[in-house]
Amino acid sequence: MSGLDKLIQGIVHKDPWSLGRLARTIDDDLPGKEEALVQLHAMGGHSRVVGITGPPGAGKSTLIGKLIREGRKRDRTIAVLAVDPTSPYSGGAVLGDRVRMQDHATDPGVFIRSLATRGHMGGLSRSVQHLIILLDAAGFDLIMLETVGVGQEEVEVKDLAQTTIFVTVPGLGDGIQAMKAGVLEIADIYLVNKADQPMADSTVKDLQTMLSMSEVRDSWVPPVLTSVATDGTGVVGVMDEMDRHFDHLEVSGGLEGWRFSVAGSTVTEAVRGRVEESIRTLLDGNSAEFRTDVERVSRKKEDPMSVARRWLAKLNFSPD
Amino acid sequence: MSGLDKLIQGIVHKDPWSLGRLARTIDDDLPGKEEALVQLHAMGGHSRVVGITGPPGAGKSTLIGKLIREGRKRDRTIAVLAVDPTSPYSGGAVLGDRVRMQDHATDPGVFIRSLATRGHMGGLSRSVQHLIILLDAAGFDLIMLETVGVGQEEVEVKDLAQTTIFVTVPGLGDGIQAMKAGVLEIADIYLVNKADQPMADSTVKDLQTMLSMSEVRDSWVPPVLTSVATDGTGVVGVMDEMDRHFDHLEVSGGLEGWRFSVAGSTVTEAVRGRVEESIRTLLDGNSAEFRTDVERVSRKKEDPMSVARRWLAKLNFSPD
Repeated sequence: MSGLDKLIQGIVHKDPWSLGRLARTIDDDLPGKEEALVQLHAMGGHSRVVGITGPPGAGKSTLIGKLIREGRKRDRTIAVLAVDPTSPYSGGAVLGDRVRMQDHATDPGVFIRSLATRGHMGGLSRSVQHLIILLDAAGFDLIMLETVGVGQEEVEVKDLAQTTIFVTVPGLGDGIQAMKAGVLEIADIYLVNKADQPMADSTVKDLQTMLSMSEVRDSWVPPVLTSVATDGTGVVGVMDEMDRHFDHLEVSGGLEGWRFSVAGSTVTEAVRGRVEESIRTLLDGNSAEFRTDVERVSRKKEDPMSVARRWLAKLNFSPD
Repeated sequence: MSGLDKLIQGIVHKDPWSLGRLARTIDDDLPGKEEALVQLHAMGGHSRVVGITGPPGAGKSTLIGKLIREGRKRDRTIAVLAVDPTSPYSGGAVLGDRVRMQDHATDPGVFIRSLATRGHMGGLSRSVQHLIILLDAAGFDLIMLETVGVGQEEVEVKDLAQTTIFVTVPGLGDGIQAMKAGVLEIADIYLVNKADQPMADSTVKDLQTMLSMSEVRDSWVPPVLTSVATDGTGVVGVMDEMDRHFDHLEVSGGLEGWRFSVAGSTVTEAVRGRVEESIRTLLDGNSAEFRTDVERVSRKKEDPMSVARRWLAKLNFSPD
C-alpha cells in the first residue's frame, strides 16, 4: 500500500495524524496533492458546510467553541476551518480564541485547523475548497468555516457553504451600514452576539427592518437570533436554526444548486491556480530581471502595461 | 486631436466630465483603456494616497466627508475612491453616506467615485490601481481610498497607500481580536471614532498596549487618535498626523520604497489581469460545455482537477 493510500485509509477513521498530514500537503502544495485530491473528491458527499462570518471582535471563535460542544451532544462529528488573516508582515499568530477550543483536543470527533491567509486572495479560497474536500472525505457531519471581515470574502464563503451565519454585535448593526457592506443578502441566519450589551434590541430591530425590505430570494426567511456566546446563551437556538435551514435546502432542492456551485468554483479555481502558479514561478525565477523592470516603472522610464506585455510573452501565453 | 487626447487634456484641469469618462473606460475595460493608462502613467507622480480602512459602521465615510472639508481649507484638491462591496446578488447600492459627500458636488477640487466590488478580488485591486493612475495624472493633492473590512484586502491597500488609517469604534478594539485580524502591523495611524460612546478610553488603551508589544518596523510610532466624525471633533488632528506621516516618509526614504512597491504590484496585476481575462473569455464563450463539465464534477462522475486540466489545454497555456 502506498503512503498516500495509508493516509487516506487513516482519514476514514478521522485519524488526527493522517488528517494533519494531508491538510499540510494541501496547504503547502506538497507533491502528491493533486493525486490525493482526485481520490478524496470521489469519497465525499456527506458533510454539511456552515460559514460563520462577521467582523473581528464579534465573538465568532467563542461561539464556534460552544457550537462544537452542542454539536457533540447531538452526536455529530465536527471540523472547523478558521481563516485567520494574521499579519503577512510578522508571521506571528495570536492564538487567543484557538486556545479555548483546546477543550476538544483529545476528542477524535473534533478537528480544528487554522489557515493563515497568505498570498493572493484567490489562493486562500482554493486552499479552503481543497481542505473541505479533505474533511468531507473524512466524513465529518459538520464543517464550520470561520472567516473574518465583510465584503468580497463572504461571497466566496457563500459559494462554499450551504448555510451562512452572519455574527454581529450591538451597535454595529446600523442597517444602512450592514446593507452597504452587502451582507444582508448573503446570510441565511443573522446573530446578534454579546446580546447582554446595550443596544442589542435596536440592532435586532434594525436587521429585521432591513431584511423585511430586501428582495425575497426564496421561501427561506432569514431569522435574526441573539446570543451571549461566552456563557452559552442562545447557542442551542443557533444550532436548531442551522438544522432547520438544512432541512429547508433538502426540501427546496437547494442542495443540488449548492453542489453545482461548489463544483463550478472548484474547477474555475483549479484553472486559475495553475496559471497563477506559473506566473509566480516565472517571476520568482527571474527576480533580478523583474526588479529592474519594476524599478524602471517606478522611475517612470517605462509604463507598467508594456512591461507586463513583455512578461506575458515569457509565459508562453498567447491567448489571442 | 484624438478623443483620448482631448480627455487627457480635460483631466489636467480636473474637468469632471473627462475624469468620469476616463474612469468609466478604466472600470468597464472599454477600448482605449490601455493606451490611456500608458499616457496617464507618464503624467503622474504628485498625489499622496491615504488608505482609510476599518469595519463597516465605524463611520469612515462621515470621517472622509469631514477630512475633505478640512483638506479644502488647507487648499488641497482631493479625490476619494470608495470601495463599496454592495451586494453582488442584488446589484442595489445604498447611497447613505455617499449622499453626505454631495456637499462637494460643485467643487472641481473634489472628485468622488464609488467602486462596486465585482468579480474576483484581484479585479478590484487592479481597478483601484488604475484609477489611482488616473487621479494622480489629474494632479489631485490627496487621494483617499476607503475600504471596508479587515483581512487580505488591507494588505492590498497597504501596497497602494503611503499612509494607512485604521478606523475602529469603542468596544471593537479588543486587542487580541485586532491583532488576530492582522491590522495592527498594517496601519500608520489608529483612530477610535465615535469616541463619545462608552468604552472609548479602554479601546484606545487596548490599541496602545498592543502597539507597544508589536515589533518596531521603523522609526514611525503609530499614534492612536480619537474622533467624533459626526460633529467634526478630532478631524484636524487626523489630518495633522497624516501630514506628519508623509513628512516622515519623505525624510526616511520611505517614499522610494512605496513607489517601487506600487510599480511592482501594478505590473504583477497587469500580467495576472490579462491571463484572468483570457480564462473568463474562454469559459464564457463555451458556457454550455463548461456547465456540462461542472455537472459531471458535482455528480462525482469526474474530479475537478482533471476537468481543470482539460480547460487549461484549451487556453493554449503550456507553462511546463
